[in-house]
Amino acid sequence: MMSREEFVAELRAVGIGRYHHLHPFHQRMNRGELSPEAVQMWVKNRYYYQQMIPRKDAAILSNCPNRDVRRRWLHRIVDHDGRTDEEGGIEAWLRLADACDLPRSALQDEPLPGARFAVDAYWHFARTAPWPVAIASSLTELFAPDLMADRLAAFRGFYTWVPDWGFDYFQRRIAQAKTDADEALEITLTWCDTPQLQASAVAALQFKCQVLWSLLDAIDAATR
Amino acid sequence: MMSREEFVAELRAVGIGRYHHLHPFHQRMNRGELSPEAVQMWVKNRYYYQQMIPRKDAAILSNCPNRDVRRRWLHRIVDHDGRTDEEGGIEAWLRLADACDLPRSALQDEPLPGARFAVDAYWHFARTAPWPVAIASSLTELFAPDLMADRLAAFRGFYTWVPDWGFDYFQRRIAQAKTDADEALEITLTWCDTPQLQASAVAALQFKCQVLWSLLDAIDAATR
Repeated sequence: MMSREEFVAELRAVGIGRYHHLHPFHQRMNRGELSPEAVQMWVKNRYYYQQMIPRKDAAILSNCPNRDVRRRWLHRIVDHDGRTDEEGGIEAWLRLADACDLPRSALQDEPLPGARFAVDAYWHFARTAPWPVAIASSLTELFAPDLMADRLAAFRGFYTWVPDWGFDYFQRRIAQAKTDADEALEITLTWCDTPQLQASAVAALQFKCQVLWSLLDAIDAATR
Repeated sequence: MMSREEFVAELRAVGIGRYHHLHPFHQRMNRGELSPEAVQMWVKNRYYYQQMIPRKDAAILSNCPNRDVRRRWLHRIVDHDGRTDEEGGIEAWLRLADACDLPRSALQDEPLPGARFAVDAYWHFARTAPWPVAIASSLTELFAPDLMADRLAAFRGFYTWVPDWGFDYFQRRIAQAKTDADEALEITLTWCDTPQLQASAVAALQFKCQVLWSLLDAIDAATR
C-alpha cells in the first residue's frame, strides 16, 4: 500500500507524462497555428465531451452507496447543467460556440467517430468501475487550471477573431477545476484504500488521459 | 399509438390491479395485525429500497442526454439524500427506524435476499432501460398518496407504540408523491411517443409494481 504522499505523487506523475497539454493539437493551438475551421472543429467535437460530463457524474452517483459522498459529488451535475438555460458549464461552452460563429445546431450533430468512441468509453467507465476508481478518473482536473490559463492566453493573443465574451468557460474552470480537483483527490485518497484500489485509481487516471488524448487525435486528423 | 387519455388510463389501470396496496402484508398492516417485530422487519428491509432511490434516479440522469429533463429530475436526488444529515427522505426513514426502536446500524445490515433481489432489479432496470421508460417505472407515485394516507391512519390508530414524530416520511410523501407523479407523468407522456415506448412504459410500471410486491413477499415470508 502506498503512503498518501506516494499515492499523490503517482497520480501527479500521470498528468506530467500523459495529460493532453502534450498533444500536438493543443501545442499547435497554444502557438496560434490553428485555422478558424480547426478551432471550430475542436469546439464542436469537444462539446460532445462537455455534454457527457453530467451524465458521467450521475453514473458515479448511481454506483455510490455512500450518502455523504453523493451529497458532495452532486454539485458537479448542477455546475454543468445549470439550474436554468442561462447557467452552467454546458451553456458556457455553447456561448464559446456562439463566439466562434458555430451554430448551436451544429453541436447537436454526430461528433467525429473517434471523439464519440473516446467520450462514450469514459461514460461506460464511470458506469462500470468501482465508484472511488471512477472518481479518480476525474483527477485530470488536477492539471486543468494550468492548461486553461495557457489556452485563455493563446486565444486572447492569437485568435482575436473570437470575442472575449466567449471565454467564460475557460475562466470559470481555472478556479473551479482547482476546487473540484481538491475534492476528488480527497475522496480518492480516502476511499481507494487498498493496494488494488490505489493501482486502479492510477490506471483510471491514465485511462482518462487516453480519453482526452484520443479526442484530440480525432480532431487533429480531421483538421490536417 | 394510444391517445394521451388512453395512455394515462392504461398506466392508471396498472396501479388499480397490481400496486402493493393489495398485498396481504400491507392489508394486515392496515388492519393493525402486525407485531412490533413484523413492523421492524418491514422498516428495516424497506430501507434497502429507500436508500436505493437516489441511485436509481442518478442512473436515469446518467442515461438522459436531455439537459432540460436532467434539470427537472435532479431534485429527486436532493429530496432523498438531503443537503445535510438532518434533511431528506432517507433521513426521514431513519427517524422512522428510531421511532420503531430499531438501531440505525441494523439498517446497514444485509437485507433479506428477496428484498435485495427486488431492489437491485429496480436499480438495474433504471441503468439499462431507455430513460423515458425508466421514468415511467417511477409512476407508482401516482398511487402512493392514498397508500401513505391509509398507512399513516393505521399507524396512528393501531401501532401506538410508535411515537408520532416517526411519521415524517409518510407525511412528506403524501404531498410530495403527488407533485413527483405529475412531473413523471408529464415526462412519460411527452417522451414515450411511439407505440413501442408506450407499451414499454406500461410494462415498466407493471415491473415496478412487481418490485414492490416482491419486497413485501420477502418481508411477509420472514414474519409469518
